Amino acid sequence: MYEIIDASLRAFVEVDPDSDFPIQNLPYGIFSTPAGGTRAGVALGTWVVDLQALQRAGLLPENLPPGLFGRSSLNAFAATGRPCWNAVRARLAQLLSGEDPRLRDDPALRRQALVPMDACALQLPFEIASYTDFYSSEEHATNVGKLFRDPANALTPNWKHMPIGYNGRASSVVPSGQDVRRPMGQLATAAGAPEWGPCRQLDFELETAFFVGPDSRLGSRLSPDHAASYIFGMVLMNDWSARDIQRWEYVPLGPFQAKAFATSISPWVVTLDALAPFRVEAPAQAPCPLPYLQERERTTYDIELSVALRTESGASATISRSNFRHLYWTMAQQLAHHTSSGCNVRTGDLMGSGTISGPSPDALGCLLEMTRNGQQPLVLPDGATRSFLHDGDEVIMSGHARRGDLRVGFGQVRGRVLPAIP
Amino acid sequence: MYEIIDASLRAFVEVDPDSDFPIQNLPYGIFSTPAGGTRAGVALGTWVVDLQALQRAGLLPENLPPGLFGRSSLNAFAATGRPCWNAVRARLAQLLSGEDPRLRDDPALRRQALVPMDACALQLPFEIASYTDFYSSEEHATNVGKLFRDPANALTPNWKHMPIGYNGRASSVVPSGQDVRRPMGQLATAAGAPEWGPCRQLDFELETAFFVGPDSRLGSRLSPDHAASYIFGMVLMNDWSARDIQRWEYVPLGPFQAKAFATSISPWVVTLDALAPFRVEAPAQAPCPLPYLQERERTTYDIELSVALRTESGASATISRSNFRHLYWTMAQQLAHHTSSGCNVRTGDLMGSGTISGPSPDALGCLLEMTRNGQQPLVLPDGATRSFLHDGDEVIMSGHARRGDLRVGFGQVRGRVLPAIP
Repeated sequence: MYEIIDASLRAFVEVDPDSDFPIQNLPYGIFSTPAGGTRAGVALGTWVVDLQALQRAGLLPENLPPGLFGRSSLNAFAATGRPCWNAVRARLAQLLSGEDPRLRDDPALRRQALVPMDACALQLPFEIASYTDFYSSEEHATNVGKLFRDPANALTPNWKHMPIGYNGRASSVVPSGQDVRRPMGQLATAAGAPEWGPCRQLDFELETAFFVGPDSRLGSRLSPDHAASYIFGMVLMNDWSARDIQRWEYVPLGPFQAKAFATSISPWVVTLDALAPFRVEAPAQAPCPLPYLQERERTTYDIELSVALRTESGASATISRSNFRHLYWTMAQQLAHHTSSGCNVRTGDLMGSGTISGPSPDALGCLLEMTRNGQQPLVLPDGATRSFLHDGDEVIMSGHARRGDLRVGFGQVRGRVLPAIP
Repeated sequence: MYEIIDASLRAFVEVDPDSDFPIQNLPYGIFSTPAGGTRAGVALGTWVVDLQALQRAGLLPENLPPGLFGRSSLNAFAATGRPCWNAVRARLAQLLSGEDPRLRDDPALRRQALVPMDACALQLPFEIASYTDFYSSEEHATNVGKLFRDPANALTPNWKHMPIGYNGRASSVVPSGQDVRRPMGQLATAAGAPEWGPCRQLDFELETAFFVGPDSRLGSRLSPDHAASYIFGMVLMNDWSARDIQRWEYVPLGPFQAKAFATSISPWVVTLDALAPFRVEAPAQAPCPLPYLQERERTTYDIELSVALRTESGASATISRSNFRHLYWTMAQQLAHHTSSGCNVRTGDLMGSGTISGPSPDALGCLLEMTRNGQQPLVLPDGATRSFLHDGDEVIMSGHARRGDLRVGFGQVRGRVLPAIP
């Protein structure tokens, strides 16, 4: 089912062994150059491979709609479905390895189709249809439950029975590198009535997210075993959160403005094919979930994740190391639950994992957890402290999978905090 | 600011005095006919006025983009903004009254541009960007708080300080007349572990909703006084709700699958211009809201709303009569709060009012309230009883404003319940 590119294959251009983007990865993105406009590409080492140029040159499968890669989003390609994704990926591996020499041996086409990544502006990869965020890390849900609700009953009674999720705000999803403005909002006070002011507890959340490929039909439910046909690929995500706004607003209908001001995603969409060599067993589930959430193969991915904080002084420090495999609910289960009522999913739907915290104290996915709601400020290597984010702070999330010499990565999602505008 | 059509003006075609669609209304919609395809129109009595035909004939303002009304949604027109909306509305009033005789006196064009409504299929009027649902009726929030949470503290502490809202699911918004499938889902049991089954507490919610016209910019906040430039118009909405699924899933992140299977809206988008003659003072607010929610003119609209239930026996009964004016938070305040964090809104965003219950027992907006969570079943005139909806039940919501001889209405939103597919 997956189109796995042999680990021994090498690209005909040099790719650093520590690159996130070897020929075994080939993640999709949307990029712009002053001369060439906006189009789709795949990352290969320090290059972006221009898919529009390859299609125009007749090197991609012939049954693809013309102009499929000359658009400002991957939506149309993602909608074509897995057989088409597989065909394109297989062809790209042939072309970029030189097994099919038509690109390698055509210097003019190579100049056109291989664009240095540092000469490209990377855009949002999808026109996002809807954005859903799950809450699938048991450690995170437990830690937050203790801080926001009841330490003795941190997990709500439903948590082990379904991948809890909520609808987020799609309009404010921004690409990596775009600055994020500290929000204004209603803040609870000891006196009871709220005050209006800049968020004082601005936080990040370390997440991944997946993009939906083909539409499903309203009224139809997807089994977890359908997931590979509907999940186009994954990105890193920073679900910026205003904790003080959130605490005041979220009962009874969930987070709203506390998470509506920005959500940052990484530019390269890593396919499940590229991640297939890193499949591992997912955590055991007890109690056993209802049949509609049961998976024939209960697998997830071993993806190392980290968060670095760079302050205005320029000092940078890694403040968290987590792993995607810690998640209790898999993407397949999230998708099955999302359609359990008959709700349809659509091309370009973005579905977040929820904050990915691990079991160890250095594997927490947000400052709320790391600092216990600001009570135990983080001390950075240069002596600076943080309860929550300061203006000028830049949050940099990275992720990659590794097995032996094979490394498949996501690159980074980064965003810097701008001061609020009162 | 509003383009109000004089109450004495008459259309050159006959319009019943009890019609929802006199020349003072002119609501926008999207319709299809076998011969003419899909395009935009306005309702006038029993006719749909084909805006594509009028634009092609050169009768609409000349500065409009060509083909603006030949699309399958109103998004492009709504994005043009208020000056353009006003110009189109003023021109339509001239043409449809015969003050400008070019349509009235051209029999061929009349045959083309006036399509009998019963020969049209009415579509979703917008490609819905995102869907947000508010919770702005004090009576509804109080009644639900008593049933779902704490009778002594039914309103959460934040409720009187902000228009509480949440992000809903845009993909499953369906047009009036489309059947709605009873969802399957996780249902709480007395034993603790949930079971999987068809929803047993299927409910409707009587709402209105507005569509956003132009985009706002990420990072900018809209004052309530900006509302008339951003609100394109209103529809009726049935926010179908699975109460048993909702009760089990909604803590801590809000409703998800309980409301994701379907939301029905009426086909005709009634503009604020058409509703302007029905402006009334909005309910007084105590405590005084924060300055960002304060309105120069605190007005709302006197819109009579009703819900009828038609059972499979064919018997139909009106089971609720409410009014839009009961809402504590206005649409202008909802929009201001939605952008308070800097969250951007977009053309085609659908923003629901929340269930509109009034202060009297016959003005409740959902069965949950009417039957006190099923404890006091509703008795219909033919003796049938309902705690919640049965398969085959059709819910029909209507709404109109009236002052003297002037009536401006929404038509209906209707939907029939199909049995679950286990």
